[in-house]
Amino acid sequence: MKRRNLLAGAGTGVAVTALGAPALAQGIREFRMVTDWPSNVPGTLDAAVQLAEAIQAATNGRLRIEVTPAGAVVRPFDTLDAVSAGVADMYHSADYYFESKSPGFAFFAAVPFGLTAQEHFAWVRYGGGQALWDALSAEHGIKPILCGSTGSQMGGWFTREITSTDGFRGLRYRMPGLGGEVLRRMSATVVNVAGGEIRPALRSGALDASEWVGPWADMALGLHEVANFYYYPGFHEPGTALTLGINIGIWESLAPSDRRLIEAIAAGEFSRSLAEFNANNAIWLARLREAGTVQIRRFDDALLRELLRQSRDVLAEAGSRDSHARLISASHRAFQGAIRNWSDIAERAFLNARGLD
Amino acid sequence: MKRRNLLAGAGTGVAVTALGAPALAQGIREFRMVTDWPSNVPGTLDAAVQLAEAIQAATNGRLRIEVTPAGAVVRPFDTLDAVSAGVADMYHSADYYFESKSPGFAFFAAVPFGLTAQEHFAWVRYGGGQALWDALSAEHGIKPILCGSTGSQMGGWFTREITSTDGFRGLRYRMPGLGGEVLRRMSATVVNVAGGEIRPALRSGALDASEWVGPWADMALGLHEVANFYYYPGFHEPGTALTLGINIGIWESLAPSDRRLIEAIAAGEFSRSLAEFNANNAIWLARLREAGTVQIRRFDDALLRELLRQSRDVLAEAGSRDSHARLISASHRAFQGAIRNWSDIAERAFLNARGLD
Repeated sequence: MKRRNLLAGAGTGVAVTALGAPALAQGIREFRMVTDWPSNVPGTLDAAVQLAEAIQAATNGRLRIEVTPAGAVVRPFDTLDAVSAGVADMYHSADYYFESKSPGFAFFAAVPFGLTAQEHFAWVRYGGGQALWDALSAEHGIKPILCGSTGSQMGGWFTREITSTDGFRGLRYRMPGLGGEVLRRMSATVVNVAGGEIRPALRSGALDASEWVGPWADMALGLHEVANFYYYPGFHEPGTALTLGINIGIWESLAPSDRRLIEAIAAGEFSRSLAEFNANNAIWLARLREAGTVQIRRFDDALLRELLRQSRDVLAEAGSRDSHARLISASHRAFQGAIRNWSDIAERAFLNARGLD
Repeated sequence: MKRRNLLAGAGTGVAVTALGAPALAQGIREFRMVTDWPSNVPGTLDAAVQLAEAIQAATNGRLRIEVTPAGAVVRPFDTLDAVSAGVADMYHSADYYFESKSPGFAFFAAVPFGLTAQEHFAWVRYGGGQALWDALSAEHGIKPILCGSTGSQMGGWFTREITSTDGFRGLRYRMPGLGGEVLRRMSATVVNVAGGEIRPALRSGALDASEWVGPWADMALGLHEVANFYYYPGFHEPGTALTLGINIGIWESLAPSDRRLIEAIAAGEFSRSLAEFNANNAIWLARLREAGTVQIRRFDDALLRELLRQSRDVLAEAGSRDSHARLISASHRAFQGAIRNWSDIAERAFLNARGLD
């Protein structure tokens, strides 16, 4: 099935093909997946489509998933509720969009100064994360599965240079989630603007700064044409995780072998989507440098230290707001404490050594 | 199926269960997998067994894989030849064990100062690596699939401190592959010793230093009891990849949907095995630090710079030895040049920022 076909239901609001008796006899099942991904941004909607394709291909068409972009069936960020209510069978999103339900959800997408993509996978699988995630999502009728990652993001586009710890003061800065709360404490004015609105807002001066994802997705939005400074690292989203959330009744109706198949393929899509983001970010970063119109700058150490301090406070508060968040944040904090000691002498020490040439 | 059952054929050399007519009618197929992994070391044989289990579970037992440890069916490192000859159906190994056939194979396992685990996945999938790997392995009757990673390794255990660039001179150091060749040029005496022999050799003084994998696997071998210094980073193996190599006749006999299923599940096992190594390395590193008996040291910058210089020469030579190696090393070098620019401002910059607290 071509991607175009998988997306054929987009915008119709009618996502189910009526399956005839022969199809049902062969065990063919068709599911409706809603997403929070617009169709004009590369990477995320594509990750949902490729997950659907992989499941369909591996089952020789027995399990079919029809993917719809943001807004086609339900409003953006109403996806979890739609799946919970059975309006759709599964969602593909990033769970920080649901943090108003519980701050615990943010920990399964991105945490300021938190876990990298690969550390996050390790927490979910080997650090107790999955059981806590299952318990949180079950209250909303959802079985959550880690199915992708955007990898480490960029700190954002700025129309002016940031020269001091005070540099965020009064800045009109687009950043969602816990990162946005950190910015508020740095005296920035946090503005919520949808992806498609960032470019005009930076151009008109309604925004002074905005994060989005990384060079690949950001340049598709044209952000390099309306801001002169591109800052790193993306302290607020060190490895944003993508979620496949399945209606729990649907999940329980699946044969154990199909559950294992979906879990295994979702893990494969985690690797694949992360690789796709990284490979494309490398290509677009090279193009950006070649164009020479944007200054690519690192946030300075004093600013990063202040962001670290504020992030700790924000996390402590988010982790105290309900019983799920308390357990989740404690588990996350303990795992991060252990894994970073290893990452520091493994991946980090290696990357720094490779940079000595 | 319990892991014990999957391993039941170990040592018998007879790995196929005769399937009766009803099984064949249901499309049940059973495959024999040979590995280069000893059963007393955690992580690698386990990765092979979990890959087999995942495929079996996702197909509800239709595709079965019997996994045997190193030496049970063929001699260690004869695994590729065995699959090539049809003595077994697939192997699970690290392709640098086959570099005597072509230096090109080493690039699909680990390269000194090369790609991290995740960068390697991106090269294979999005940087042209898979096509070159297919072409190389096809000459030996193999379809290669990336199916795991040990992640970043440690530089090794030393019975004495390394205080200068000259510190490797005369050192009896166990390190295989391209890393071993780098050490030779640093005037070390490279000694080949099987995993189980490292501990007695370090104790007796037959070895002064040895790399193995990381805290989890190394401490299972008891290496922390016979050497006082543990150095990082593992410049020689920044993210060692594991390969599922399938007899090409078997591969072509599979339905397209089963090929997609195996590829997708292998990609999932890449993330899972990497997470398992990292999570366990964190645990065992903490235990090692708590015991306080071993000095954990970083190779100094001057030594790392010299290792970088020698590694470049070794890679240039390895990449000029045959036509496959030329194409593979050129692709690898180009991809690394691009992706490291991104990794430097993404993962590396983030890990360094997180370390500012």
